[in-house]
This record gives sequence, C-alpha cells and structure tokens, in this order.
Amino acid sequence: MKDKFRGLWPAMLTPVDDQGAPELKELEKLTSRLISEDLDGLYILGSTGQGVLFTEEQRKKVTEVVCGVTAKQVPVIVQVGSLTTAESVRLAIHAARSGADGVSSVGPIYFSGSAEMALEHYRSIAHATELPFFPYQLGDRSIPGDTFKFIDALMEIPTVTGMKLTTNHLLEISTIFNYAGDRLKLFSGSDELLCHASLCGTVGAIGSMYNLWGKACKYTLEEFTMGNYELTKRFMLSFQEVIQLILPNIWTFLRSAMKLKYQIDIGRSVAPLGNVSKEWDEATVRNLVEKIDVFAESLKQQQS
Amino acid sequence: MKDKFRGLWPAMLTPVDDQGAPELKELEKLTSRLISEDLDGLYILGSTGQGVLFTEEQRKKVTEVVCGVTAKQVPVIVQVGSLTTAESVRLAIHAARSGADGVSSVGPIYFSGSAEMALEHYRSIAHATELPFFPYQLGDRSIPGDTFKFIDALMEIPTVTGMKLTTNHLLEISTIFNYAGDRLKLFSGSDELLCHASLCGTVGAIGSMYNLWGKACKYTLEEFTMGNYELTKRFMLSFQEVIQLILPNIWTFLRSAMKLKYQIDIGRSVAPLGNVSKEWDEATVRNLVEKIDVFAESLKQQQS
Amino acid sequence: MKDKFRGLWPAMLTPVDDQGAPELKELEKLTSRLISEDLDGLYILGSTGQGVLFTEEQRKKVTEVVCGVTAKQVPVIVQVGSLTTAESVRLAIHAARSGADGVSSVGPIYFSGSAEMALEHYRSIAHATELPFFPYQLGDRSIPGDTFKFIDALMEIPTVTGMKLTTNHLLEISTIFNYAGDRLKLFSGSDELLCHASLCGTVGAIGSMYNLWGKACKYTLEEFTMGNYELTKRFMLSFQEVIQLILPNIWTFLRSAMKLKYQIDIGRSVAPLGNVSKEWDEATVRNLVEKIDVFAESLKQQQS
Amino acid sequence: MKDKFRGLWPAMLTPVDDQGAPELKELEKLTSRLISEDLDGLYILGSTGQGVLFTEEQRKKVTEVVCGVTAKQVPVIVQVGSLTTAESVRLAIHAARSGADGVSSVGPIYFSGSAEMALEHYRSIAHATELPFFPYQLGDRSIPGDTFKFIDALMEIPTVTGMKLTTNHLLEISTIFNYAGDRLKLFSGSDELLCHASLCGTVGAIGSMYNLWGKACKYTLEEFTMGNYELTKRFMLSFQEVIQLILPNIWTFLRSAMKLKYQIDIGRSVAPLGNVSKEWDEATVRNLVEKIDVFAESLKQQQS
Repeated sequence: MKDKFRGLWPAMLTPVDDQGAPELKELEKLTSRLISEDLDGLYILGSTGQGVLFTEEQRKKVTEVVCGVTAKQVPVIVQVGSLTTAESVRLAIHAARSGADGVSSVGPIYFSGSAEMALEHYRSIAHATELPFFPYQLGDRSIPGDTFKFIDALMEIPTVTGMKLTTNHLLEISTIFNYAGDRLKLFSGSDELLCHASLCGTVGAIGSMYNLWGKACKYTLEEFTMGNYELTKRFMLSFQEVIQLILPNIWTFLRSAMKLKYQIDIGRSVAPLGNVSKEWDEATVRNLVEKIDVFAESLKQQQS
Repeated sequence: MKDKFRGLWPAMLTPVDDQGAPELKELEKLTSRLISEDLDGLYILGSTGQGVLFTEEQRKKVTEVVCGVTAKQVPVIVQVGSLTTAESVRLAIHAARSGADGVSSVGPIYFSGSAEMALEHYRSIAHATELPFFPYQLGDRSIPGDTFKFIDALMEIPTVTGMKLTTNHLLEISTIFNYAGDRLKLFSGSDELLCHASLCGTVGAIGSMYNLWGKACKYTLEEFTMGNYELTKRFMLSFQEVIQLILPNIWTFLRSAMKLKYQIDIGRSVAPLGNVSKEWDEATVRNLVEKIDVFAESLKQQQS
Repeated sequence: MKDKFRGLWPAMLTPVDDQGAPELKELEKLTSRLISEDLDGLYILGSTGQGVLFTEEQRKKVTEVVCGVTAKQVPVIVQVGSLTTAESVRLAIHAARSGADGVSSVGPIYFSGSAEMALEHYRSIAHATELPFFPYQLGDRSIPGDTFKFIDALMEIPTVTGMKLTTNHLLEISTIFNYAGDRLKLFSGSDELLCHASLCGTVGAIGSMYNLWGKACKYTLEEFTMGNYELTKRFMLSFQEVIQLILPNIWTFLRSAMKLKYQIDIGRSVAPLGNVSKEWDEATVRNLVEKIDVFAESLKQQQS
Repeated sequence: MKDKFRGLWPAMLTPVDDQGAPELKELEKLTSRLISEDLDGLYILGSTGQGVLFTEEQRKKVTEVVCGVTAKQVPVIVQVGSLTTAESVRLAIHAARSGADGVSSVGPIYFSGSAEMALEHYRSIAHATELPFFPYQLGDRSIPGDTFKFIDALMEIPTVTGMKLTTNHLLEISTIFNYAGDRLKLFSGSDELLCHASLCGTVGAIGSMYNLWGKACKYTLEEFTMGNYELTKRFMLSFQEVIQLILPNIWTFLRSAMKLKYQIDIGRSVAPLGNVSKEWDEATVRNLVEKIDVFAESLKQQQS
C-alpha cells in the first residue's frame, strides 16, 4: 500500500524553546493543525524541521510526539540524516518503532564525497528497518557521479521507495523519472517550482512553505493537473515573488506568520541558523500571508 | 505593433556546403518550409544557425536570403553577436536594411567579463538601429552581477524589447518577469522546458528543436495553455527523453532528420562544432522523429 | 606572546575504537609521539581529527587528554565547529579550561549561508573565551561575499589571531596577507601546496599529512625558506604525487601507515567517513611512507 | 633543438589603431623593445595580443611583422585559436611559412564541449604544420574530462611539444608534470603565480605582465631558482598586489604604462574588450610601474 506517498507534504517546522530544544506543546498543536489542513502527509526533522540541530534524544522525542498525535491519520516520514551513519541508523530504527510510515535521509554531511560513499551511507540506513526509504538529494546537480548508475544502485535497495529532490534544475527530475518510471516515487522539494515539477513526473511535493500555505498550494497543484493553467501561472508567479522576498529572513518570517495565522509559536531558529535574520513588521507579514492565501479562498468560492 | 514577438520560433539552422559556407539554395528551401509549418517567427544565425562560425559577408548573405524569402510573412530576428562590438554593429545595421524585424545578440564572446562590459556591448548594438533588440543570455545563472541592476540597465535602452533566456534554472525567468512585467518580452531557449517556462511569464520560445518538431511543440504549448495537462506532461517527458538521447550527437542527428523529414540537407556542422559526432542509423532517426511528431498528429486528429 | 602560532602543525588524527569512540590510550601515545617529532603545535578535532563525528562529551575528553599529555610542551589549538553555535561555545569554554592555547572553528555546517551568518557564528565562539581564535575557511573561494569586508569584520574581533585557510587557490592567501599583514597569522591547510603557500605570507601550515610526515615536511619548509629550491621542488612534486595516489583511500592508508611507522592504531574512520575505502597492501604503504621520509633522512645526513 | 622553449615570454600586446586594426609601426617598435629586454621568446596573438579580435588577414600581417623584426633572435610562438578549425589551420600554415618557431591554440571558442571535441580541434591544427604545437588551456580546471586521458591523447600527437596552462590551481600543473615529465614543456600563464608554478615543473612562463615588467620577473624567477627566497616572497606579494589593483582596468593601465615606460602606444583595446575601463592618473601608473621595476634595479645593483 504505497499510495500514501503522494500529494502535498509540509517539511514540518519544529517549534523550539529559548534553549533551542523542541517545544513539545507547540509541536502537538502544529501537528494537529497541519492534519486539519487536509495535507497528505508530514515530513519531519528535515532542514525546515532543523533536525540536525537537535540531539539524538530530542529528535526521538519529536518523532514520538508527531507520530502520537498523528495516529495514522496521515503518513509521517522521518528525516534521520546525521553526521554519523550510526546515529542515522539508530534514528531510523526508532522511527519504525514509533509508528512512522517512512524514513528519509540527506547524504553525508560535512564529509561529502563520492557517489559510492553516499550510497553506502544510504544502504546502512535503508537496511536498518523495513520502512520505505527516501534518499534526499539537496541542491542543483546534487547526484554525485553518473546519474543512472546512482539510480540503479538506489533501486537495488529493496526499501528505497522514492526520493526527495530539492533542485531548481527540473531536468534532473525528468531524467530520473524517465529512467526509473514508477519504481521511484519522486517528491520535489523546490516549493517555488511545485507545479512545474509535476510535469516532470513527481507524485508530490515536500516543502517548508506548506506549513503556512499548504491549502493554497494543494488546491493550485490539483487545479493545475485538472487544466487550470491561468490560475496556476498567476499563483506560481506570486508565490515565487513572495518566496524571494522572504527568503533572506525566512526564519523570522515563518515565526511571525505562523503566530499570526495559527497562534503557534515556532520560536527562534537554532543558531547559527537564522542568526542574522531581521524582524518583520506584522502588517507586512499579514499582507504576504494573505497574498498567497487568497488563492485558496478564491478557489473555494469558485468551487462552491 | 510588438505583438509579433511571441509564440514558437525556430532558432533556424543554416545549411552549409562542404567548405563550411552557407548553402543558399537549401537555405531558401528551409526558410519556405518553416514558414509553411505555421511557426511564429524565425530567429537566425544564433548558436543553432552557427552564426559566429561564418564570415561577416556570409552572415549578411544569410540575412538577405532569409528576409527575402520570408517577405514579411513571419517576423525575423537576426543574431549579430560577434567577437567584436564593431562587427555586431555592422551586422545589426545590415539586418535593419535587409528588412529584419529584430536584432538579438549574445554577450561578449571569449573575453567575457563584468555586467558593465556586457551592457556597454549591448548598448552599442542596440543603438545602432531602431529595430527591437533582444539580448540573449545563454546558460544557467548567466546574468552577471546583480540581476535587478542588469535588468534596469537593459530597460533603459529604448530599443530593448525582450530577451532570449536559455537557462534550465526557471526561477531566473520568473524573477525577471516579476520585475519587468510586460516591459520585456521573454523567450525561453531551453526547448526541453518549453511549457514549464511558459508558467514563468515567457511569451514564447526560441529553440533548435523547432526546426524539426515545430508543429508538435506549437500544438503542445497551445494545448498546455488551454488546460491539457496530461498531454503536456506526456509530451514533455518524451521530448526530454529524445533530446537527452540525441544531444551527444545532435548535429548528425539534425542533418539526418532534416533530410528524412524535409528533404533538406543542412550539411556538416562547421568544425570544431560537431567534429566528433557519430553518424546515426536512419531507422533510429526515423523512429525518434516520429516519436515526437505523433503528438502533432494525434492532436490534429482530435481537433478534426 | 603570539609567536607560538607558527610552523608545522599536524591536524591531529584521533584514534577511535570499534564503536567509533575516541581510543584514549592510543591518543596519548600519538600525542607523545608527535611531540617527540619536534613539530610546532597540535591542531586537534578538525576534519582529520573527525571532530564533528564525536559527541560533545567525547570531544571534551579528547581535548583533556591531549592537553594533559602535551603539558604546554607545544601549543594546542582545539577545533570546536559544530552544527550549533551553542555547542561550539561550550566546547570553546571547555578548551580554555583544559589549558588549550587557541580555539578554531569551521563556519556553519549544513546550513551554510551568508557572510554575515558565518561572522555572527564566529563572533559568538570568539567572544566565549580569551583564547586566540582562528576561523577555519575550508575550500577554494570559501570566503563568502566581499573578501575585504569579511576580513575587516574578523579583525574587529579582538581574539581573532589568525586563520586556517585550506585552499588550492593560492591568491586567496596572498590577498588576505597583503590586506591584513601581521594582524592575522595565516596557516595554509593544503598540504600539497605547503611551500608554495609560504611565499604568500603564511606563518605555518596545519595538515593531516604532518601526522605521518611531519619531519620531512618541516625540514623541507625550512630548507625552502633558506634557499634550497631544488630540494623543495623535488620534494613537493613527490609529495603531491603520493597525496594524489592515497587520497581516494586516505583513511585506510593513514591507518596502515601509522601502524607501520609508529605502532599506533588510529582505528577505522567513523562512517560515513571512509566507508568505501579499500585496504592497502602493506608493502605499498611502506614504500610510499619511505618515498617521502627519505627527504627527512637525506637532509639529516647532509646536516651531519 | 627544443631548448628554446623555456624561460620568460611576454604574451605580447598588439598595438592597435583607432579602427581596431593592428598598428604596424608601433608593433615593430614593441617587438624590438621586447627583444632588447633580454626575454626568452615572444608569444603573439593570444588573449593579451587580442588575436581573436582581428581578422584573419590582420593576424597574418602581425605574424609577418613580428617574425620579420625578430629575425630568429628569439623564438616566436603564434596563437592561432579561432572560431573555426579551418581558420586556425590556415593561420598555423601561415605561421610556419612566416618563420615562426611554434604554434599555440586555445580550445574551441563559443561552442566549447567535450574533451574529444577539443582534442580533434587540436589534432587538426597540430597536423597542419611541422612546428611544435602548444595547446593553451585557459582557466581553473579547464582540462575537460579525465586529465590523464586528455594528456595521453595530446602526447600521441607528434608535434605537441608542451602546453600553456593559465590556471590558479597549481596542482593541475603538478599533476600534468608528474604524469608527462619532460615529454611536455609546461608554461604557466598565471603571472601572479609565476614562481610558485616553477615548483610544479614548469619550464617557463608566458604572460601579459612581461610586456611591461619582463626584466623584473625574469630576474626574480632566476633568483628564486637560485635560492633567493626572501626576495621572491617580497616580489611576488607586491606583484600580486599590483596585479589585483590594475586588473579591473587593465587595458587602460597597460596603455598608459607602456607609453610612459617605452614610448609605445598600444592603442585602445578592441571593444567589447576593455569597453568600460577607466582612465588612470599618470602619477599612479608611474608609481605602480616603479613599484615592480625596483626589484629589477635592486638586483642589478646587488649583482654589480
């Protein structure tokens, strides 16, 4: 039953307290809120979730809380990439025990290297559990060495079910799709190319913006696949404009916007992440949030 | 009356003889053929047209022949980029006198450099005639320096009407569109992202593949904007697969395919271009040509 | 009394046990051995020392052991770069309490970003203690943004005493030296350009190869500055050849070579680091070790 | 008799008139002047000589004039790289007939591509004459594909005698030297790393700065190889500082400096080259010229 791996998934934020530890009450609230937004799954402890900035114990706790609150209403993928393979393996085993639906991992951190090094790292993690595994390639041209050899090696790992591909270089996605077909479920990770990527064979998208604008994005992606070109074009151009505007100070923006929209405080990002972000004016944040949310509204009205 | 700058334009091939000089009879035939394909304009002497591999006199002759045969049935843009600004200026003036509708130019060749250097080069060419001018930025992240300053400087040049943007990094197109709006008519130059780019604000596309598959591409782009998501997705994935297959030996493929489909011999590319291309098997070429052309056919049937 | 920051420093290896934890007995032996090699200081827990692959407690323990054994016979710099600024700060404070002579840190890991982000990260660490601080820039063109602004900002931090610059792009070193002069003590980190870099204003070099070949490298560097061009050229070319040969399987080479030469077992590198390294034939390792060591020998004989 | 390919060679400037054509009287003067400076050869019509910005006839004329004035007093290498292989071949044949001692060429311009494409281009040019041929690789990591395969293929061409390597990545030079040994005479093209590169196995250097400061550079390089480390370090750091200062406006600097020092007018660079260079203040130019020349002077005095 792999059909659960599709659609729009927030790369879920992890609320943190003043010491940079996960704030579990807010985490519960956020989990519930995202489920109620009718999104298709939760991808936790990735870059947006600041996974690598927490201790192993903190990561395990976050996994338990999210899986507990979710209670199988939507599937959960846990990102377990760490500085050591051993920690990633332990986190994967813990995710399986906690009831997660899938495991994902970035490649080696700090000591990056050859394709073979990354594959061996993935193999260890993928073999640690029976959960579907999703390697997470991050960045343009991030697949090391020969693309097809790399994909072949991934497909030889039985639990590898798909990939998260965060690239602005869309042909990389098409190339993998044309090669692997349905064998790999591809999620795009570049929110600003959400719909464009769906033309390249993705089954869904995982991204930080869907914490905030999941509904508008989900509606647009669905409308797009049903033929609403004009709406998609208008939405994507606005979405790209807003993303480029907020990107230099993304962490303070998300904090302010999540508070305004959901009354959930995600806290300050853990330094060095966001350590020079400027604070936003509340009215500006409200305007930007609405600039995107209006698409969800207009659609709802059209549909009613 | 700037509406002529839109739609699907082949980056027109220039047939050459055994000495690497333009073969004017075949050029006339190709010009007529492309006009009869119902494409929206002709972009001549760009990379596909091997412009920089011809002498100044040869380039002028090609311009005259194409403008003569075209006789204003479709607009013609002449690419005049050269190693020296002076030659580009002379070619631009000649293009205007020959009845071309627009001038385009790549940035400095060989001695590339700062944004200011490229802009000054463009200014000289753009001021040489009253024709609409289209700077041609080639490659991912090819805009030097600060994007907005560069676009501002371009928009200060009265004849600058649009740009040709050959990038696989679609956000570059959206960013320019969101900034310049209708002031600049943007053409995408990455054939394999033809439809995706249209979501980013392009008014059309200029590319080498449209010499061969102009009709299928034009139909698909139109269907896409009218809501045919499924066809677009199938077409683009096939198109990308074929492009990646032919790219390593593109020049011999195009020669063989143009002969098969149009009975026009574009000759051997001028060395060093294509100097190690392998010859194609005719059946393979025919299959690949049909694999894309079938989209035009199926559409025609649907429409009838 | 800053003159202790000069000369040849091994980026010290950290022996590990089968669980990937520091092996403290071997660590003591290695520390003693390197001191007896007459090197100028010890740089611990950097990339070669696998610092980021240990837990915070393990890193603290390694620092205590090395500082304890060293007992001020040679200066010790502790690399404290971590995923979070907070951990780096704690490690810096601990290094000061343990009797270290300096602190160093790589920039932000995983979430890299703007110059300002890196500077803020460095500021927090540098202000945490009164020890001399050495930012560690790793990679060609690794200084973000405007080089001079970045260097200015570093020089405004009172404890910033120098930099470790691991680049193959030597002009980056000269540029900083010509700008900062004696204000910053520059160490080169590209072992294979050890002597070349000294022409660019470095006061010394920090590198992994000096664990094994510290004597030969130190003699050569000294001979070079005293005018022995021919020996330097022969040495550097051999050294570069050997480095390029061992680099693809560096971790198994170093383990085998350290065992042969010093009877010290540094253990297997912590995965994913070195997870696909091939084992070396002992005779090959011995030959390569001697190929470089012969330079130290020949010099000793010349001098006696 | 290949020993003539060694030492310090100016990448000779080509004086131009107001129309951007070679100014032959000044060219004769410059040729004589450089010969009288006791340099080891002349490399003409490269990037510094603006070769690709002249017509084929102009390039031939320049070759004839320089070879005529030189009259075998020093060897001359002619750079023949052009947009088409055919033009490069014609220029190579002409160079041989004009009495040049060697031919050099950059790789494909504009349509760059695979290693095989570049090699085929080089083969055609190299086989066109019996003159020693020097491929000119320009830029860091400019050797396409597998370095050793590329070097093997070059060494199979009988007339390939050496290479001009303009890279700031010195290991590329060492790697080729360690592989090819004396089979290839390597010239470095990065003036600012002149002496550093000599440690990597170069037999000499070819560069633009030697038009102006050939004597100081030649003396320093010789002193360096004879053991004068301190002078070399001081010189190279000053030289690098001056080069970085003049580089943004190099063409106007060279014009002004050549006028001041040699009373030779090299004219304005051919646009787009140097099209936004700012004019220099004469006193500044004089100071900078002297800042480097003083090294030649001080040495002369020491030697007398």
